[in-house]
Amino acid sequence: MEPLSITIYDLYAFFYSKDEELLKELKKDLYLEGWIRGNRASKEVGFIDFNDGTNFRGIQLVYDKKEIENFNEVSKLKVGSSIRVVGKFTLTPDAKQPFEVHLKYLEVVNECAEDYPLQKKYHTPEFLREIAHLRPRANLFNALFRVRNTLTMAIHHFFQERNFMYVHTPIITGSDAEGAGEVFNVVTGEKRTNEFFGKDAILTVSGQLHVEPFAMSFRDVYTFGPTFRAENSNTPRHASEFWMIEPEMAFANLEDDMHLIEDCIKYCIESVLEHSPLEMEFFNNIVDKSRTLIERLTSIVESEFKKMTYTEAIEVLIKAVKDGHEFENKDIKWGMDLQTEHERYITENIIKGPVFIIDYPKDLKAFYMYLNDDHKTVAACDLLVPYVGELVGGSQREHRYDLLKQKMEQMHLLPELKWYLDLRKYGFTPSAGFGIGFDRLLMYITGVSNIRDVQPYPRSANALKY
Amino acid sequence: MEPLSITIYDLYAFFYSKDEELLKELKKDLYLEGWIRGNRASKEVGFIDFNDGTNFRGIQLVYDKKEIENFNEVSKLKVGSSIRVVGKFTLTPDAKQPFEVHLKYLEVVNECAEDYPLQKKYHTPEFLREIAHLRPRANLFNALFRVRNTLTMAIHHFFQERNFMYVHTPIITGSDAEGAGEVFNVVTGEKRTNEFFGKDAILTVSGQLHVEPFAMSFRDVYTFGPTFRAENSNTPRHASEFWMIEPEMAFANLEDDMHLIEDCIKYCIESVLEHSPLEMEFFNNIVDKSRTLIERLTSIVESEFKKMTYTEAIEVLIKAVKDGHEFENKDIKWGMDLQTEHERYITENIIKGPVFIIDYPKDLKAFYMYLNDDHKTVAACDLLVPYVGELVGGSQREHRYDLLKQKMEQMHLLPELKWYLDLRKYGFTPSAGFGIGFDRLLMYITGVSNIRDVQPYPRSANALKY
Repeated sequence: MEPLSITIYDLYAFFYSKDEELLKELKKDLYLEGWIRGNRASKEVGFIDFNDGTNFRGIQLVYDKKEIENFNEVSKLKVGSSIRVVGKFTLTPDAKQPFEVHLKYLEVVNECAEDYPLQKKYHTPEFLREIAHLRPRANLFNALFRVRNTLTMAIHHFFQERNFMYVHTPIITGSDAEGAGEVFNVVTGEKRTNEFFGKDAILTVSGQLHVEPFAMSFRDVYTFGPTFRAENSNTPRHASEFWMIEPEMAFANLEDDMHLIEDCIKYCIESVLEHSPLEMEFFNNIVDKSRTLIERLTSIVESEFKKMTYTEAIEVLIKAVKDGHEFENKDIKWGMDLQTEHERYITENIIKGPVFIIDYPKDLKAFYMYLNDDHKTVAACDLLVPYVGELVGGSQREHRYDLLKQKMEQMHLLPELKWYLDLRKYGFTPSAGFGIGFDRLLMYITGVSNIRDVQPYPRSANALKY
Repeated sequence: MEPLSITIYDLYAFFYSKDEELLKELKKDLYLEGWIRGNRASKEVGFIDFNDGTNFRGIQLVYDKKEIENFNEVSKLKVGSSIRVVGKFTLTPDAKQPFEVHLKYLEVVNECAEDYPLQKKYHTPEFLREIAHLRPRANLFNALFRVRNTLTMAIHHFFQERNFMYVHTPIITGSDAEGAGEVFNVVTGEKRTNEFFGKDAILTVSGQLHVEPFAMSFRDVYTFGPTFRAENSNTPRHASEFWMIEPEMAFANLEDDMHLIEDCIKYCIESVLEHSPLEMEFFNNIVDKSRTLIERLTSIVESEFKKMTYTEAIEVLIKAVKDGHEFENKDIKWGMDLQTEHERYITENIIKGPVFIIDYPKDLKAFYMYLNDDHKTVAACDLLVPYVGELVGGSQREHRYDLLKQKMEQMHLLPELKWYLDLRKYGFTPSAGFGIGFDRLLMYITGVSNIRDVQPYPRSANALKY
């Protein structure tokens, strides 16, 4: 009988299926391909910690001198080597793992070199960052990149189920729309000129302006792609290249926006907990010092997101300073930008859960936000969550042509962005949207504190080795 | 009774559901928001061609002088205006459309300005390209961007269902891996230096090299994101920014690769035909001159993809020249790069269907491809399809350290890409993958012949207005 060629993912799926037909399949000889994660042997018997990459959890291979021809060779095989094996599925009711595979045959595909940097021991994330081409094989990164995949698909499913249309907004753009400041320029030739496009070109800082025309055509849309900042700030939360999720809804106001944000965050957390349970258990037990990650995330899903105006937030902070709370920046006054310490105080000490801060002073926010009737604040919302501070920023857009034109003139955005202004003449509707930094959302959900660890090939100042 | 707030998408879904409960809902007053696509009125009654963006097909609104207060105002409303309406769902068994909505109330949200460039008449794609912020409202582009969404999700579902893991490969890279030639440089500051990264940085031309380490960790992976070329070639098939789909499989050879390509292309076509039937009907009847688009695509799904070696292809072409076939380039000889005319001759005249050309001369292909035993050809495959020529390119990767090192040294890729070479020392396995230009696949499936029309904001030389 031909051996059954199977992946470890399917092996666990068959085993847990309780399906008679599938379980019968496991009685066949099994053919597996993958990598050695660990190998130890006595004189008669050896054990390989084996993974083929299809599942976070691997399996144990057992080899016996009496069963395989090349016992001595196999017992010396190094961590990292790739192999093909044939063996028997064997239940192990008394062991930690539910089953193992007893080998009949092992063939070496590529024996790993002596200088393999990823030995079976603890390596620091800092060390592993230096070997970006190998670190996905380490448990921490293996789990992170799996959850990155799960979270990406959660985002798509969330929007697609709600009939939002995905739009590929451009990477190369002609204007720094957000006024985000430090941007990357795109040039060609040895002289590095802007000749190719005939004007200055930069890497996008946000897809929002480009997605708005699509909301005015398809009602509900989103963009989800790479964005860039040339900030030379060497913090654990900043990267030069990161993915942003930016939905936009026509016929929507700030209230609709906050509903969507709340639904989206809850959906993402639930989806990761459901589809990556082993990885999340790993983050909870190994990465999170207090072992409360899953508990904290579950409480977010179960909580009702609260609201507080910026003006109320300032009052709360002034009272906190009076009551003796020690902020690094104690000079609280209306018009200031809230720092993470202030945001965390509000969400952790006052609200004890997620909270939207709304109606920010207009000078703190982007030009395209809807001016409230007080003429001092705009219809913006930032979602604050415990342990992090700001996680999402959204707003209703200014739909009044004259007001927007005035603002854009002040900021010298015309005539470059005339097309954006002109949307307001051609059947514009109230419109709202938000932006989530995908990598920061992933950090939040996994509890991993450095953005360099959640990205396959992180980019920042002086970091472009891979 | 409160009116039922509903989108046109749901309106059709309810109507076609044959579900008693849903059909009962349609007896309520309906509340809709959207845009006027056309408006004509007699003295007593008027008709609005209405769409809210949620569905390719809109609906007809009927307004009667006896039913609405502002009949005169409404009868003058311009195309492009945004409105809110309340009305009654009414079956129209004798009309082209299955139903219409008879208005009780119409409120203008934003009356469209006089100079609206998108009037209800035929506009050329060339004209529409000049108004990228408005063209998604035109039928052609509306259908294209909807199918773009459908096709994107088809790609993700195809790979996710097969347990392939999505990897976000970087946009900013340090090396022109493909030797693709003309690249965009990424610089900062007024002096446009490479100071930020401390080395030259370019926009990626392919995610493949960066995704291979992930195949060596997760077995089956794919990247799907923007790639760039600074080619100043003003053809309908070239863009400076386009999305690429690049899967990679560990423990796989060229044969496995071709299976995956065939499955992927068939899956994408079937998925678009299933999920975007109205849009595909539009492309078939309005865009395709011969009205055979759907028939052609269906025949691809039903056909078995054939194989032919490059050497055989050259023989076939030499014979064709002898038999009097008129190629522009008739100088057929082994070692030449096949032109589109040659590719189309083979797939259309000889095979009469999709065909893989395999085992290309090594000098025509990239450095990382597996050298065949003949030492003259590499294990590459190009999929050719009728009316287009090449649609997909794939290969098995060179897994032999010494051979790859030699090749990389010749091409001066070391030490920059040492990490890529080193993968071959650390448990490398036979590995294969392919690349599909997403925008070209979309052109192929919709029958639209200019890449500028399938991209939301196309970028090419001197084209960066939006």
